[in-house]
Amino acid sequence: MFDIKHHHAAMSVPNLEDSIGWYERVLGFKLERRFHIPAIPADCAMLKRDGLRIELFHVARAKAAGEERRHPDSDAQTHGNKHAAFAVRDIAPVERELRARGADIVFVKKHEMGANIFIRDNAGNLIEFVQQPEMWS
Amino acid sequence: MFDIKHHHAAMSVPNLEDSIGWYERVLGFKLERRFHIPAIPADCAMLKRDGLRIELFHVARAKAAGEERRHPDSDAQTHGNKHAAFAVRDIAPVERELRARGADIVFVKKHEMGANIFIRDNAGNLIEFVQQPEMWS
Repeated sequence: MFDIKHHHAAMSVPNLEDSIGWYERVLGFKLERRFHIPAIPADCAMLKRDGLRIELFHVARAKAAGEERRHPDSDAQTHGNKHAAFAVRDIAPVERELRARGADIVFVKKHEMGANIFIRDNAGNLIEFVQQPEMWS
Repeated sequence: MFDIKHHHAAMSVPNLEDSIGWYERVLGFKLERRFHIPAIPADCAMLKRDGLRIELFHVARAKAAGEERRHPDSDAQTHGNKHAAFAVRDIAPVERELRARGADIVFVKKHEMGANIFIRDNAGNLIEFVQQPEMWS
C-alpha cells in the first residue's frame, strides 16, 4: 500500500487576511504561499509550521457555518469531516499560552486517556489539542 | 510557543463498523482503540497508521451531511472545517491502487504545483492526496 504523511487540514474562512494573521499570531504558522483555484473560485493560502500545514479557502459570498459547528458536541451531530487535532506535550502550559494570546477556549478536559482542549479560531472553526507527551519521548 | 505535531483528523460517520472497515481496507489504517464520549453521546474509534490518526464519531440519529459536502468545490462554499489531506510520493500509482480497491474518485488534477486527487470515503467524506515527492527525499 502506498505511503502517506500528513499534508494539511483545510478550512473555508470568511476573511483570508484575518485568518492568516490569527494562525500566525496564535499558533505560529507562517504563510507558505498564496494561490487561486478558478474552479471554485477561491483565493487560498497555505500556512506551514514544523511540517504541518493548514489550507485556507476564501470564497466570495460563501455561507456561514451553522451554529452547531462551534462546539464539538453539537458538531458531531451532523455527519462529515470535522476538526483537526494537534498533539502537545502538556495541556496546562498550552492552555495558559492560548489564553494569553486571546484564543477562544471551548473547554479543557482531563480524562482517563490524558487531557485535551478545544479552541475556536477567529472564524469559529474548532481546533483540538491532545496531550501526548509520549510523542516527544 | 509550544510544540505541536499532527494528532488526528476527525469525522462523524453514519456507521462506525463500516467506516472502520473502509479505512482499514482502502487506506491501511488499523483500529487503535474504541471509546465512548458520554457528553455527546458518541461511540468513537481512533484509527492509526504510520503516526497518522483518524478519529471516527458515531452519534445515534445524527443528521446527514449536505450534498454540497461531497465535492470540494461546493464544500468550500460554506465556511468551516473541511477535508484532511495526505501527502503521497506520486499520484499515478495512488490513483491506480485506490481505483483497484473501489474508492470513489472525485477527480484527479495535474497543475503547476504538482498533482492532487480527491476521493470520498464510504460515507461520502472527502479526503485529498497531494503529490509531494520532496517529503520523502
